[in-house]
Amino acid sequence: MKGILVIADGLGGRPTDMEGRTCLEAARTPYLDELADRGAVGLVDPIGPGIRPGSDTAHLSLLGYNPHELYTGRGVFECLGIGLDVRPGDICFRANFATVEATKDGLRLVDRRAGRIESGQEELAATVGTMRLKTPGVEIQFRASTEHRGALLLRGKDLSPHVSETDPHEVGAAIHTARPMAGGAAAKRTAAAVNELTCQSHEVLKDLPLNRERAAAGKLPANILLVRGAADCPHIPSISSIYGVRGAVIAGGALYRGVALACGLDSIDVPGATGGLDTNLRAKAEATLAALATYDLVFVHIKGTDNAAHDQNAAAKTAFIERIDAEFVAPLLERLDWRSTHLAFTGDHTTSIDYGDHTADPVPVLFVGANVRRDDVTSFNERSAARGGLLRFSGQVLPMLMSLANRCPKFGS
Amino acid sequence: MKGILVIADGLGGRPTDMEGRTCLEAARTPYLDELADRGAVGLVDPIGPGIRPGSDTAHLSLLGYNPHELYTGRGVFECLGIGLDVRPGDICFRANFATVEATKDGLRLVDRRAGRIESGQEELAATVGTMRLKTPGVEIQFRASTEHRGALLLRGKDLSPHVSETDPHEVGAAIHTARPMAGGAAAKRTAAAVNELTCQSHEVLKDLPLNRERAAAGKLPANILLVRGAADCPHIPSISSIYGVRGAVIAGGALYRGVALACGLDSIDVPGATGGLDTNLRAKAEATLAALATYDLVFVHIKGTDNAAHDQNAAAKTAFIERIDAEFVAPLLERLDWRSTHLAFTGDHTTSIDYGDHTADPVPVLFVGANVRRDDVTSFNERSAARGGLLRFSGQVLPMLMSLANRCPKFGS
Repeated sequence: MKGILVIADGLGGRPTDMEGRTCLEAARTPYLDELADRGAVGLVDPIGPGIRPGSDTAHLSLLGYNPHELYTGRGVFECLGIGLDVRPGDICFRANFATVEATKDGLRLVDRRAGRIESGQEELAATVGTMRLKTPGVEIQFRASTEHRGALLLRGKDLSPHVSETDPHEVGAAIHTARPMAGGAAAKRTAAAVNELTCQSHEVLKDLPLNRERAAAGKLPANILLVRGAADCPHIPSISSIYGVRGAVIAGGALYRGVALACGLDSIDVPGATGGLDTNLRAKAEATLAALATYDLVFVHIKGTDNAAHDQNAAAKTAFIERIDAEFVAPLLERLDWRSTHLAFTGDHTTSIDYGDHTADPVPVLFVGANVRRDDVTSFNERSAARGGLLRFSGQVLPMLMSLANRCPKFGS
Repeated sequence: MKGILVIADGLGGRPTDMEGRTCLEAARTPYLDELADRGAVGLVDPIGPGIRPGSDTAHLSLLGYNPHELYTGRGVFECLGIGLDVRPGDICFRANFATVEATKDGLRLVDRRAGRIESGQEELAATVGTMRLKTPGVEIQFRASTEHRGALLLRGKDLSPHVSETDPHEVGAAIHTARPMAGGAAAKRTAAAVNELTCQSHEVLKDLPLNRERAAAGKLPANILLVRGAADCPHIPSISSIYGVRGAVIAGGALYRGVALACGLDSIDVPGATGGLDTNLRAKAEATLAALATYDLVFVHIKGTDNAAHDQNAAAKTAFIERIDAEFVAPLLERLDWRSTHLAFTGDHTTSIDYGDHTADPVPVLFVGANVRRDDVTSFNERSAARGGLLRFSGQVLPMLMSLANRCPKFGS
């Protein structure tokens, strides 16, 4: 039997409209309601009650891992998701192109997003790619992603994730010197490499033709690369080694693809899957249906719900949920072979419109398929889920889905 | 106040019949329903949500222990349950009589169950009992149980549970040589002892009159003893030391008796308690009522539910649940002193008819007695339990029962 896990990012909500409804309650979702009617619903605390989850830690927990034990930082997943070949011992960073100005007291931050540069990232990345460190035996790999963002890794012997960041996060502040945050030679050596790459990035970027053109056009130059969130590669037992399944991820956002790759899933590229509100949900549904021909497990990540909520736009979140229902859920409902497939649908956390960020509220979850103990709830939202047959539990949605598909290993005998 | 804990093995189910009912839903259980009406119900994840339990780990968890910390393997409980005197430092194994044939490449497996031998186990066990190892200071203890099964322990200084098994689990394959699975002299020495006992068992068993008779009757000879699941004795604080109660177990199956003995309970033998579908449930009820004269806690294990489900026989599971209700629950309901007794009734996991094995689905649980916060659920099954006053929780059924009996230690002050 096969399984589909759908995570709509930031799906959960808080009372938002005049009637005290969440976006999911306000949205018209006949297909999700049909799945709820056929299956069982409940509330899931992505990591645990009262724990306000990040997207990375929440995904690890929903996939059955303990983020308190495994999580080293977001950088690893960004590096993987962006296509870098992360190996044990590598130190991964999130990176951003920024604008600095040289003063008599050194480099000071003008804009940590270099005016959210909209083009030329390949030229910037190629320039970073020419950098060679003097720190012996340490090599840099870098890729740009969207706007000012990118991911960077250091490879070499005796490196450590225990180094502080260079991004001061404050306009006018001096660029931070990376400091070793632990004893021993490895942290010192890694901090030295980070400081060297920070200075060198300013040297190679500041006079780029691209930056001269930006200055001429009144735009901020991308004249330094800042790094943060040093993380080494955690040992994550693969989903295939645990459940004996072949699995794939369909996700527009690099972070989610990165988490799934770290858990041993293959990534399926879907044209039009952007990780934004403009994503092609019908294409993702088609890709899911097609993937089931070769994979036992398909994990689909849908990001737009979270984007709308971070933008504090209730109407956009509600409308996007309705699009998920009509353009993604409807085709699956109609065309899946429900005798041999189980589906779980949930979010990785609540993202509140009012707060514009993740909160610790639990998230509705539904399971549907032949082995599910159907309950009498016939709609899918935060309040109906609280009356469902699954009650409330923490994380572990993938192991439950794998158990429904009779693919779960036994602990004990 | 006194407590009774009843675990019906593999009680939980999945939708099975044409109406989507589980066996427990389909069964007519007026006495369990009466207990549910008088008490409170809920769903218990035997170990935790999404964890597919073995019977041994599930029992430890329901009895209030953390199997992730304590569990070393099933062998210890099999040895204890079969009546071996397990001491700290002993290495316990599950063992089975098998049939091998000698080839020019060594011993090859013909049948790992020696044709599920039905008689003569005492003679085989006595023969194994004559074996003396050359490995200095290492002693063997062995007992046969049902059919081809038995349990074996090695006693001596400097032994290790980190040795591989000798059972190849595959017809035609060579008998495995036990290998040390950890560094150090102890694992090497233990592996040597296991290999010696394997060879010696073939030598002493192959020409037994019993085996010559079996061969003459066209049956497979029990001409070797294979061992697996090496485990050392975990340190389990006794139930009496934790709760200050005298407790006893009534169980036909050796494994469950073994778990209870490891937790410091006494074992009460009940004639006719077989650990099978033919068990004498009325005798177990009588023994439970009698035991309450001398014990504060009686743990009763009933195995047939699980046997029927492993055989994928829904009718047999449903019928056995009805027998538990009429022959075991009814006498307790009628004759217990409910002013001074609390009872918990649950299963150690779900065993699905369709899958024929344990699954991670939660299990209905009920508590009844004077201290229970009665809820408005009036029947006992997977779906009614999801609407009960106890909601959903993980393991810990015995500590809850002991708290209702006002016998639970305080954590903190």
